[in-house]
Amino acid sequence: MKQKIYINELANHVGQEITLKGWLYNKRASGKVKFLILRDGYGYLQCVVFKGNVSDEVFEAADKLTQESSFEVTGKIKEEPRAIGGFEMDVTDLQIIQISQEYPITPKEHGIEFLIDHRHLWLRSKRQVAILKIRHRVVQAIREFFDKRGFTLFDPPIITPNACEGTSTLFALDYFDLGKAYLTQSGQLYGEAGALALGKIYTFGPTFRAEKSKTRRHLTEFWMVEPEMAFFDLDDDMDLAEELIEYIVQTVLAERKVELEILERDTTLLEQVKRPFPRISYDEAVKLLIEKGVDFKWGDDIGGADETTISGHYGKPVMVHRYPAEIKAFYMKRDPNNPKLALAVDVLAPEGYGEIIGGSQREDDLDELLKRIKEHNLPEEFFNWYLDLRRYGSVPHSGFGMGLERTVSWISGLEHLREAIPFPRMIYRNTP
Amino acid sequence: MKQKIYINELANHVGQEITLKGWLYNKRASGKVKFLILRDGYGYLQCVVFKGNVSDEVFEAADKLTQESSFEVTGKIKEEPRAIGGFEMDVTDLQIIQISQEYPITPKEHGIEFLIDHRHLWLRSKRQVAILKIRHRVVQAIREFFDKRGFTLFDPPIITPNACEGTSTLFALDYFDLGKAYLTQSGQLYGEAGALALGKIYTFGPTFRAEKSKTRRHLTEFWMVEPEMAFFDLDDDMDLAEELIEYIVQTVLAERKVELEILERDTTLLEQVKRPFPRISYDEAVKLLIEKGVDFKWGDDIGGADETTISGHYGKPVMVHRYPAEIKAFYMKRDPNNPKLALAVDVLAPEGYGEIIGGSQREDDLDELLKRIKEHNLPEEFFNWYLDLRRYGSVPHSGFGMGLERTVSWISGLEHLREAIPFPRMIYRNTP
Repeated sequence: MKQKIYINELANHVGQEITLKGWLYNKRASGKVKFLILRDGYGYLQCVVFKGNVSDEVFEAADKLTQESSFEVTGKIKEEPRAIGGFEMDVTDLQIIQISQEYPITPKEHGIEFLIDHRHLWLRSKRQVAILKIRHRVVQAIREFFDKRGFTLFDPPIITPNACEGTSTLFALDYFDLGKAYLTQSGQLYGEAGALALGKIYTFGPTFRAEKSKTRRHLTEFWMVEPEMAFFDLDDDMDLAEELIEYIVQTVLAERKVELEILERDTTLLEQVKRPFPRISYDEAVKLLIEKGVDFKWGDDIGGADETTISGHYGKPVMVHRYPAEIKAFYMKRDPNNPKLALAVDVLAPEGYGEIIGGSQREDDLDELLKRIKEHNLPEEFFNWYLDLRRYGSVPHSGFGMGLERTVSWISGLEHLREAIPFPRMIYRNTP
Repeated sequence: MKQKIYINELANHVGQEITLKGWLYNKRASGKVKFLILRDGYGYLQCVVFKGNVSDEVFEAADKLTQESSFEVTGKIKEEPRAIGGFEMDVTDLQIIQISQEYPITPKEHGIEFLIDHRHLWLRSKRQVAILKIRHRVVQAIREFFDKRGFTLFDPPIITPNACEGTSTLFALDYFDLGKAYLTQSGQLYGEAGALALGKIYTFGPTFRAEKSKTRRHLTEFWMVEPEMAFFDLDDDMDLAEELIEYIVQTVLAERKVELEILERDTTLLEQVKRPFPRISYDEAVKLLIEKGVDFKWGDDIGGADETTISGHYGKPVMVHRYPAEIKAFYMKRDPNNPKLALAVDVLAPEGYGEIIGGSQREDDLDELLKRIKEHNLPEEFFNWYLDLRRYGSVPHSGFGMGLERTVSWISGLEHLREAIPFPRMIYRNTP
């Protein structure tokens, strides 16, 4: 393959004449000089076109370039601490590839609906590129974390015959002659089968919730990583969640500095994301909320505003464990010390980002699980295969799910999840 | 977290007394000795229970264990070259966790329908565990490959408003008040937007085809990796595809030897998967097929049997390029030297595994692309955002898609794709 050079490699090419390809991000002119900012997806470079140094054709070409026009540019690279990225090119040649039509996204402010309508172009902006690079590093960090610990990747099905957590928020589709099928809300139940085969697994794929929720914390399509571990109890589960979050945050802080700066992210609180995290029981959380003046009583679910109150108190991710079983899913194991409680844990991110992890120890007793399925009025026949996992070599096991977009939003300091995924899907939006 | 020990780490524990947890894979007895084969998802270990070395309770517990019962076992590890995995445990203690009900999958032969009905248990078999570990390594290899080359991960939407390649093979769902939406068949069109923002991207996620195809090469839900690169022409595209395939195959050969042995995979031909691969034009492929006695004429699509004939001739992956434009997708660029041809490439795996990669240089001219959309009777309004990529800074660009399950099947030597994914979805099957 012909070697291509990108802007993030310029340190290796100082003093050399090289050719780069990309798009015009911005330009300004000053008499006999034109300053072209080239973007190539890897960085930004100021290309300086001096009238005296180039042919008339090249100088005219530089003049013709409109925002987002594509071009190829040749010149010598020099260090220039005052320029964006720390380098500059003295242009000797320039070839236009295509002159862009008038670009819809200009440096002026645009409304959010306009920007999402043009998401395919909005992605080219400096801010969106930075977010996507952080997202990529978060995904890498998650996979590294589990791969290094001997977890096996286990891709669960997307098309499923039954609902993991209630049927009201499911997307339904017609599946040939087999009737309705549904888009998965969670790979967990399948992941449990995987853990009993492979010891420790993680699923990592898109999940779907047809929730009629318009908040900034909801997408109908989002990615979730879900580890599931045989022979892990709730404490092991919390240890793992804590380690994972620290690893992701510290990796992104160390390796995506430039992007966090572009986003003007204040990283003070992120730097404090180090183990151990505070672990409080639901009972303690209730007490804290009441102390803070929140109208809250035992048995209530901890909502978005409550999460902000709790995590704000600590300024660190907080692990809230042992919830009332009534407000938690059927598959969670009861606390042997108090059967009103489920061995559940939610991890709340600070700075108002809310729940980023939800997990639990799973009910491993066949009869208990059957009882729960009946109590929740779930169709037992659909869960027969899942019950098999308690018939044949049942073991204590635990796991959790972490939302990718919520994690990316928190680390990047985004207002709304919609910027954390290339093409967001929301109740009122499935385009472009 | 309490440190847990797994069977793949025994080399570090020779001479030590350790505790392991897992399931009974198999057992045999010989008078006063019981040989229990423990599986823990990481390997298999022969645990030797001598009547004289343990309490009566422990000896009886060993007797009670049925296939797939879960238990915890303690004893000293020694090297034993004759035993599975090369180690053995002299048991001193054993705790039953759960006695399994009679396990449905016995060492006898089972029909394939029975096995897929019990996929959640079938996954525990030695063969299925080996395949899943190969699948994981293939996924890792793919991500390493692109990450090292500076590609940005770009997750495309699963729920899409329009069809990439025809509407007859789409799964439709109701999307709130917005009418029908469809499950993605390919992330490519979105990937192109990504490449123009980020330079080089790859998508990697589930894709869906509601094809009424029952062959062993079809799943309705499968994972696909799709790189897309700005400023890459067809030759660059082929170079990248070739490098990727070599990297995956050689990595799995080097790092999944044990698993390939469990599958009894003859790796002779895999070892020859080294660059360069033969590159033949469609015209040359036609000539070859006719020489081999196949009833084939120019303009025909190359079907499964033809693929086997072509790849069988070389015994190596073969790249067939420049197909008749008529039989290829609307977005492919025409060959400037012969506009009847599309700048497409398919990579055919040897040993009858057929097409594992399909790619092309994309049409980057706005007017040409508009013409194709009309010729193919596609709804222009749905492609308006895609056409924007040609209005604003269009550049030559290329990409391809590689099917994960086809690649895993080929490397693992599987008869049918259904074993290459944890829970396969086929026309007549969406359970468990």
